[in-house]
Amino acid sequence: MSEFDWIDRYLRPLAKSPGADGLRNDVGVLRPAGSPLIATLDTLVESIHFLSSDPLDTVGQKLLRVNISDILCKGAVPRDALLSIAMPEAFTEDQFAALCEGLSRDLDTWNIALIGGDTVRTTGPLSLSLTLTGTCLTESVIQRSGAREGDTLYVTGKIGRGGLGLRDAQSGIESDHAAHYRVPDIPPLNIADLIAAFATASIDVSDGLISDAGHIAQESEASIQIDLGQIPFAETVRDAEHALEMATSGDDYQTLFTAPAYDQHRLHATAKTLGLDVTAIGSVCAGECIKLSLNGADVPVPARTGYRH
Amino acid sequence: MSEFDWIDRYLRPLAKSPGADGLRNDVGVLRPAGSPLIATLDTLVESIHFLSSDPLDTVGQKLLRVNISDILCKGAVPRDALLSIAMPEAFTEDQFAALCEGLSRDLDTWNIALIGGDTVRTTGPLSLSLTLTGTCLTESVIQRSGAREGDTLYVTGKIGRGGLGLRDAQSGIESDHAAHYRVPDIPPLNIADLIAAFATASIDVSDGLISDAGHIAQESEASIQIDLGQIPFAETVRDAEHALEMATSGDDYQTLFTAPAYDQHRLHATAKTLGLDVTAIGSVCAGECIKLSLNGADVPVPARTGYRH
Repeated sequence: MSEFDWIDRYLRPLAKSPGADGLRNDVGVLRPAGSPLIATLDTLVESIHFLSSDPLDTVGQKLLRVNISDILCKGAVPRDALLSIAMPEAFTEDQFAALCEGLSRDLDTWNIALIGGDTVRTTGPLSLSLTLTGTCLTESVIQRSGAREGDTLYVTGKIGRGGLGLRDAQSGIESDHAAHYRVPDIPPLNIADLIAAFATASIDVSDGLISDAGHIAQESEASIQIDLGQIPFAETVRDAEHALEMATSGDDYQTLFTAPAYDQHRLHATAKTLGLDVTAIGSVCAGECIKLSLNGADVPVPARTGYRH
Repeated sequence: MSEFDWIDRYLRPLAKSPGADGLRNDVGVLRPAGSPLIATLDTLVESIHFLSSDPLDTVGQKLLRVNISDILCKGAVPRDALLSIAMPEAFTEDQFAALCEGLSRDLDTWNIALIGGDTVRTTGPLSLSLTLTGTCLTESVIQRSGAREGDTLYVTGKIGRGGLGLRDAQSGIESDHAAHYRVPDIPPLNIADLIAAFATASIDVSDGLISDAGHIAQESEASIQIDLGQIPFAETVRDAEHALEMATSGDDYQTLFTAPAYDQHRLHATAKTLGLDVTAIGSVCAGECIKLSLNGADVPVPARTGYRH
């Protein structure tokens, strides 16, 4: 069976929406939206963004989730996807099928319509790009630049799992963290409701929490004070160095956002109702930098605040 | 200067639209459209879809044009773009700047807003993906499946230039065809008006004219009869073999479409008014295959009707 039959057999069945037309048109049709329509495009390259030893169904799920994370953090709901697969010469049908199985799983879970894309050969490693659109639950898009003095800084889930998981996966240790490195444990869909209702600025934690908080500070022309002792780390913190390691390792794919301090009680109550795991970890103040503390003592900001691939 | 400064220096200036927010948000904002919004995603890999010797500004233009061609052939106008660049380790700032210069040129020419994307490293060759949206000038999207018995088959521009250009470029010959191989000479923007007004089915000629006509025939459950003698080839045809070579080599990025025979005079008059180069080359009939002829004699359909990368 040729690689073009693979598309028929494995990829076409994933493209079930009317806008996909079974991948039989040159283009996909984006579903109309009454509210702002946003789009993100993330690329994963073998041995850079995932390990050659990672099962390919997990790679398919990771590709979707790193993009879903970008949409959710903006208070938006994932919608339509276009997929580019650049396959190495030695890529087999079984590998293609496994990749599609992982994609299928998360397309279904997140109710995303695959509407188009491209499948090509490469002389290099497996490279995957996904464009994902999302419908905002707000009238205007939440930016990185909206944080205001007096806002509180929040993060969802646990921080440090990406870095710990990479270490475990590279060592062949099958831990929960390694599972998160392969298939990121991202916030549930209704985080979009919370973000849309409260956030003044938001970002997903992909580079590293401190680095990503720095993006909000920079774009908002404000300073962000983070209490390392408040961050919900994946491991019990031994010392500042250990905390900084987990706050800079990235690949967490949690949502980091700011919201007015006066909304703090209402925000926590809403999060509880929605079953969301949200923690206040700092605040926005005057200035234009990141300030860190642990147990009341200042902690110097490390030179490397995150990891960019 | 680090590769992330390159984004600031070369890529950010291209993202001028409000929806791009200077590439400072995790997502881009798609511009709302009253009519159907479509999207395409094409990937170019070095040494597969372009030559390592091709100047990088031409690669940037080619990346845009292979996608623009998909949008135009659907009777739609290009709109917003997301860009993924996977750079080899040895990629230099000058190379990045050249690539962006080519992108900038065609983003401006075609009035396309770059609203987001991703820049990563790869251990493999330079790989570029572009997602491009388009606004249809019709109320419903033109499919490959709309051709009806009695329709006429048309093509824009010249056919065979992609194949001839690849041959010249590989031999180091600086011909017009080689220039077209690097920067495809696609139909002008107002082809979208003609397609929207008349086409029953359409596709862009990327695999090869016969292969792409076959896609229309298959999806429309109809037969397509092509007179090779009517095809506007890039070179004077010597014999059937020569004609078939040019009709199967692909990379032409012209628009191939069907329209009702009764509209033929009006269609040619409109094309003339719009300054468009459109030629009738065949017709749609009952059946479900491709039939070829030259000077009144049947020509067997070759086994390889096109070239897919």
